[in-house]
Amino acid sequence: MNQRESDFQPTREDRFSFGLWTVGWQGVDVFGTAIRPPMEPAEAVRRLDDLGAYGISFHDNDVFPFGATADSKQEHLAPLRKALDETGLVVPMITTNLFSHPVFRDGAFTNNDRDVRRFALRKTLDNLDLAAELGARTFVAWGGREGAESGAAKDVRAALDRYKEAFDLLGQYVVEQGYGLRFAIEPKPNEPRGDILLPTIGHALAFINGLEHADLVGVNPEVGHEEMASLNYAHGIAQALWHGKLFHLDLNGQSGPRYDQDLRFGAGNARGAFWTVDIVENGGYDGPRHFDFKPPRTEDVDGVWESARGCMRNYLILKAKSAAFRADPEVQQALREARVDQLAVPTLGEGESVESLRAERFDPEEAAARGMGFEKLDQLALEHLYGVRG
Amino acid sequence: MNQRESDFQPTREDRFSFGLWTVGWQGVDVFGTAIRPPMEPAEAVRRLDDLGAYGISFHDNDVFPFGATADSKQEHLAPLRKALDETGLVVPMITTNLFSHPVFRDGAFTNNDRDVRRFALRKTLDNLDLAAELGARTFVAWGGREGAESGAAKDVRAALDRYKEAFDLLGQYVVEQGYGLRFAIEPKPNEPRGDILLPTIGHALAFINGLEHADLVGVNPEVGHEEMASLNYAHGIAQALWHGKLFHLDLNGQSGPRYDQDLRFGAGNARGAFWTVDIVENGGYDGPRHFDFKPPRTEDVDGVWESARGCMRNYLILKAKSAAFRADPEVQQALREARVDQLAVPTLGEGESVESLRAERFDPEEAAARGMGFEKLDQLALEHLYGVRG
Amino acid sequence: MNQRESDFQPTREDRFSFGLWTVGWQGVDVFGTAIRPPMEPAEAVRRLDDLGAYGISFHDNDVFPFGATADSKQEHLAPLRKALDETGLVVPMITTNLFSHPVFRDGAFTNNDRDVRRFALRKTLDNLDLAAELGARTFVAWGGREGAESGAAKDVRAALDRYKEAFDLLGQYVVEQGYGLRFAIEPKPNEPRGDILLPTIGHALAFINGLEHADLVGVNPEVGHEEMASLNYAHGIAQALWHGKLFHLDLNGQSGPRYDQDLRFGAGNARGAFWTVDIVENGGYDGPRHFDFKPPRTEDVDGVWESARGCMRNYLILKAKSAAFRADPEVQQALREARVDQLAVPTLGEGESVESLRAERFDPEEAAARGMGFEKLDQLALEHLYGVRG
Amino acid sequence: MNQRESDFQPTREDRFSFGLWTVGWQGVDVFGTAIRPPMEPAEAVRRLDDLGAYGISFHDNDVFPFGATADSKQEHLAPLRKALDETGLVVPMITTNLFSHPVFRDGAFTNNDRDVRRFALRKTLDNLDLAAELGARTFVAWGGREGAESGAAKDVRAALDRYKEAFDLLGQYVVEQGYGLRFAIEPKPNEPRGDILLPTIGHALAFINGLEHADLVGVNPEVGHEEMASLNYAHGIAQALWHGKLFHLDLNGQSGPRYDQDLRFGAGNARGAFWTVDIVENGGYDGPRHFDFKPPRTEDVDGVWESARGCMRNYLILKAKSAAFRADPEVQQALREARVDQLAVPTLGEGESVESLRAERFDPEEAAARGMGFEKLDQLALEHLYGVRG
Repeated sequence: MNQRESDFQPTREDRFSFGLWTVGWQGVDVFGTAIRPPMEPAEAVRRLDDLGAYGISFHDNDVFPFGATADSKQEHLAPLRKALDETGLVVPMITTNLFSHPVFRDGAFTNNDRDVRRFALRKTLDNLDLAAELGARTFVAWGGREGAESGAAKDVRAALDRYKEAFDLLGQYVVEQGYGLRFAIEPKPNEPRGDILLPTIGHALAFINGLEHADLVGVNPEVGHEEMASLNYAHGIAQALWHGKLFHLDLNGQSGPRYDQDLRFGAGNARGAFWTVDIVENGGYDGPRHFDFKPPRTEDVDGVWESARGCMRNYLILKAKSAAFRADPEVQQALREARVDQLAVPTLGEGESVESLRAERFDPEEAAARGMGFEKLDQLALEHLYGVRG
Repeated sequence: MNQRESDFQPTREDRFSFGLWTVGWQGVDVFGTAIRPPMEPAEAVRRLDDLGAYGISFHDNDVFPFGATADSKQEHLAPLRKALDETGLVVPMITTNLFSHPVFRDGAFTNNDRDVRRFALRKTLDNLDLAAELGARTFVAWGGREGAESGAAKDVRAALDRYKEAFDLLGQYVVEQGYGLRFAIEPKPNEPRGDILLPTIGHALAFINGLEHADLVGVNPEVGHEEMASLNYAHGIAQALWHGKLFHLDLNGQSGPRYDQDLRFGAGNARGAFWTVDIVENGGYDGPRHFDFKPPRTEDVDGVWESARGCMRNYLILKAKSAAFRADPEVQQALREARVDQLAVPTLGEGESVESLRAERFDPEEAAARGMGFEKLDQLALEHLYGVRG
Repeated sequence: MNQRESDFQPTREDRFSFGLWTVGWQGVDVFGTAIRPPMEPAEAVRRLDDLGAYGISFHDNDVFPFGATADSKQEHLAPLRKALDETGLVVPMITTNLFSHPVFRDGAFTNNDRDVRRFALRKTLDNLDLAAELGARTFVAWGGREGAESGAAKDVRAALDRYKEAFDLLGQYVVEQGYGLRFAIEPKPNEPRGDILLPTIGHALAFINGLEHADLVGVNPEVGHEEMASLNYAHGIAQALWHGKLFHLDLNGQSGPRYDQDLRFGAGNARGAFWTVDIVENGGYDGPRHFDFKPPRTEDVDGVWESARGCMRNYLILKAKSAAFRADPEVQQALREARVDQLAVPTLGEGESVESLRAERFDPEEAAARGMGFEKLDQLALEHLYGVRG
Repeated sequence: MNQRESDFQPTREDRFSFGLWTVGWQGVDVFGTAIRPPMEPAEAVRRLDDLGAYGISFHDNDVFPFGATADSKQEHLAPLRKALDETGLVVPMITTNLFSHPVFRDGAFTNNDRDVRRFALRKTLDNLDLAAELGARTFVAWGGREGAESGAAKDVRAALDRYKEAFDLLGQYVVEQGYGLRFAIEPKPNEPRGDILLPTIGHALAFINGLEHADLVGVNPEVGHEEMASLNYAHGIAQALWHGKLFHLDLNGQSGPRYDQDLRFGAGNARGAFWTVDIVENGGYDGPRHFDFKPPRTEDVDGVWESARGCMRNYLILKAKSAAFRADPEVQQALREARVDQLAVPTLGEGESVESLRAERFDPEEAAARGMGFEKLDQLALEHLYGVRG
């Protein structure tokens, strides 16, 4: 890879977007207080524009306070709108904060308290209106407080009924209003709840199948959330793509099952990041490359921007590597030797019968002796990751 | 709980079944050789009958060798049939070994080698015939070698195409033959492959939705497999039940994300086991209570039977506890105080409109101040588990 | 176990203590704001006295604000002292908050910034004076922010030099002042840092051996912290006892490798809790039974006290079970059959030579055939846990 | 990094060594049978010589069968000796197999059965003689079966007594025989036992401090074993170096807490591998760079050598990267900005008193506002890993 510095400078065509809550994270955690000053949304927009992003996303309460009046909302939105207008940055995704306020202590759409569930729906409906107004195409739903720490507290099947009721209602609303919005459910296995409902990409995909407006609902998988469950993120989004349901994604970094680290993209499982970019670029995903990370508490505001810049740079570096890997003749040879192409061939011939299949002769011992050549292939991939080829 | 010893003696009505490979496990692991002599299937049937089981399950090669001729198969099956006849034990489930022989080094239905995929289908078709002949109702499919250790080796979307092709073909065969069989896919996140396809209950449920004969295919979730991914097993099977897809299950024990321990049921996450039995008993599951465990290598054959006996005993102890918990008036009061019943009430009134929902007044601060009462409720559950109530 | 309700009522003889930060936790986490009002330390003391505790512990800033003047400190301490006097509760342990204020963003004793390290030492010295004044016997040191998220940021060997320098200085100070205090280092693998120094009981024990005042320093292991690293807590404190270093402990609950859950004691790994109490009661530990938990955010203040009450109750229930288990003749027989007693016998005879050892004849195949009888033994233990024996 | 292919060709000066059991692994796992033919030790030596290794290590039973007579041992050793002589490869390390034979079902030095413990000592003594004869400098002790699946089965403190007794006896023997051997204990948290004694680097280091011949005993940490416990391997070996106890090491790859994967070095946590090489090269370790991996079951014999070759190549690639990283002026500047150098400066001045420390003025708010610059520094490291700098 003969790359120059400039090759890793993001442009709008790269379609990088950031949550306002990422660069705006003040660093409050269970063990410590805010470490950075609040960041104005408009300021975030301008800095992200400087860095080469093309869009931002936000929760309602990233911009205006919980419980804000309609006037107050507009007042808080005004400078953001202005910054968007001036920079040309877009808002491809909006989401609702249904987890920070104490009222959501037991969740939102699946809270045991019916009145809280109703309130959560209202808050989301209001936010759908805003999303439509701002031209967002995707509405992410992370049910971070939908879950339980103990077995009797939550009737999971009733909770799924209520979860479905919520998405059916919201889907119906979007259809009736003619909003060009699709929903993307964001799975997470745990934290802040002991166990969260719809804990993985798979659980969310299965749930979506039972919805009234299943066509309007996909997933928004996050690297770290899957890796917290020891799952392979690239495999997960490949399955989501297979189902036609990868509507959005959250890129960041994590070091295996532990607390939700939200490291900058690339700064966790580096090999996983390579295969993530490889499938995102080659698997038919056409949405924003969206970062959901938290600049570590060690950083001041300059460090925040270094961290944001690193997310995009690492994506572009890995994108170049993925392209070089796929174009490398030695890789292509190794892929053939590993019979990766054979997997695309149907196992039965066209119109072949079970009878002809069963009549076939086969020597399992001969077949058993064949090596797959995967180590050679993977070493080539690793050397592309290391940048020591080409 | 005023229980006597005899209350925990299993009977056939309890519908306990065991894989022949469980009590028959000789103890070969990555670091050590066989530690127990082979166990004849017929002997296993007789001993399990003595202990109170009602059924057994097996892989083809638990009974006859890989590559056995039709005659050899019948020869090996004869003593097993005799033992089944004499004891009256049933075979509610059969499964195919598509992972032990070296020919399956890269999997079976999703092996990169097409001829191996075809062979795997033939092996499975033969086994379907046997399953039907023996009156099995469920055909479990654990794709333990379907996966990869490295990113380029497996095209996940192509693999899912082939996986679907396999289940579509097998489903069609079952329909055409008029076999009264249903399939149950067993998810597992990893081991023996670095990452296995369909790694969790959720991924399997989602996959099933895309099959031609989706109605014939459900899941066979195993306690340890979900807990290896830090997932809550009781939550997982509750979601499977919600989808109507809990066709079978594998009960055992595990201590979190680590190697697949296959401890006897109860001897892992004890609290998890309580909630597992609670949902199995109360959630509408009506299949066998099937154990898939491995008596530890420390045990001789006597220890094997102690371990098998413990699986059933622990289930019955927990079943009694679940019943006592649900019947306890103080628990019922605590459930009400925790508003668990409210979750069964639809969030919107019948025929209610979004307009009326949005018109409602609500004080989030007041609602936010309400405690959920979950700690009190869970302490009652824990004291039932500990056997210090009632 | 024929226990009555009253048997599980804690008394001061049980020596239960709680951190003020536990019942006083307001519920701030990474995703949400405070959910409960602040709790006055004096109020906590009175309520814990009502519940049967014998002592409390605290960080300096649990009682007075960061940066408080000497006068302000005394002002804040006054009502706490009064409550202690009135109730008779003691303060067996004190600790310093070196993690909440932004100044500790990169740690305290191992912060890259030398002036912060110096400040951390001063803050700790002040707190040692207070600990001595209040009659505490143990001074816990949790270095929660001592660590790193990335490889180059922290020179681990230099950090250990500084960590040692800090404990050498603090140890010398305690000796010179004649304070009857011992230090207890609290290990944790990660959270809030990506990786924390001295991540497990073992690493802390090894580190202590290199200190100037190694005799004054032991460990304060927390259930959840070890279980976050998939380690067996009972094994860990057994090794700490073997080294004579179990100076204090933190009891709570956790569900394997994930975020630090701080569940109430018993409400996590229930089997682990049984073996924890068994070794604490029988292994020679004579310090406080100290709880370091967080009442879940779902709870209001009533729930906080239910949760605190549950910690003590579960300990007493498990203590009764451990005693019943050890007294059960069938258990004693099973222990003998498992040759657990043989492990206490030295492997060589007194004064035996290597020559005589090597001259011995032995049939490994005969020995290999012996079962260990562990499943039978463990089933008895599990039935004591379940309360279905005796 | 302007590297050519030839820069990553290993030579003997690189001191790469491999266990015979690594390239010789036949692929037996819990779910499958042998997949590759046995490999003659002499053949392994010749192929490793061709690839550029300088040494091999082995368990006694990698070369001769369990229970071999003295004559049989020599017969099996002869071709190995010949191959070593012809190639000039050395045997820097030897270890004893105390885990494969059923007699070790409950461990070796801490087996509940005294006669098995005595047998294990004899087997090890014999192997020490062989190690000395072959000129090995390090004798590794992996107690893979020392542990338990259940709480009552193992008295951990008695087990540690016996473990110490074993190392004291073996150490005394080595001293008396004048063997130039040192022991290296290899920690592992679990697998094949539910919980293994001395589960981490820290636990082993602490244990060693209590031995009679503590100076003769260090650790042999394995990448995957620490990462199975979510621990940072580079941090762990840095602590071992700090204690002067890194006597040997096992390099391989792992993807977090799951089964023991033994991937080739580099093919797991790539970032971790970079920091591992960085500390191995710069931290004062001077022993062999020893690989303990398992070529995946997907591979035939050619794949085995690709995998072995990849281990060495990846080490050399990362070594070049570490050197380039440390030499990069921008990195050096970023290290200074991150005040990494300040951590090497003692916190107190030479001879400084507590009084002068306490008298110092300090503004915590000013200090709290300083960013650490870690993200910038880590991004530089990551770009060196990616090979996109210089």
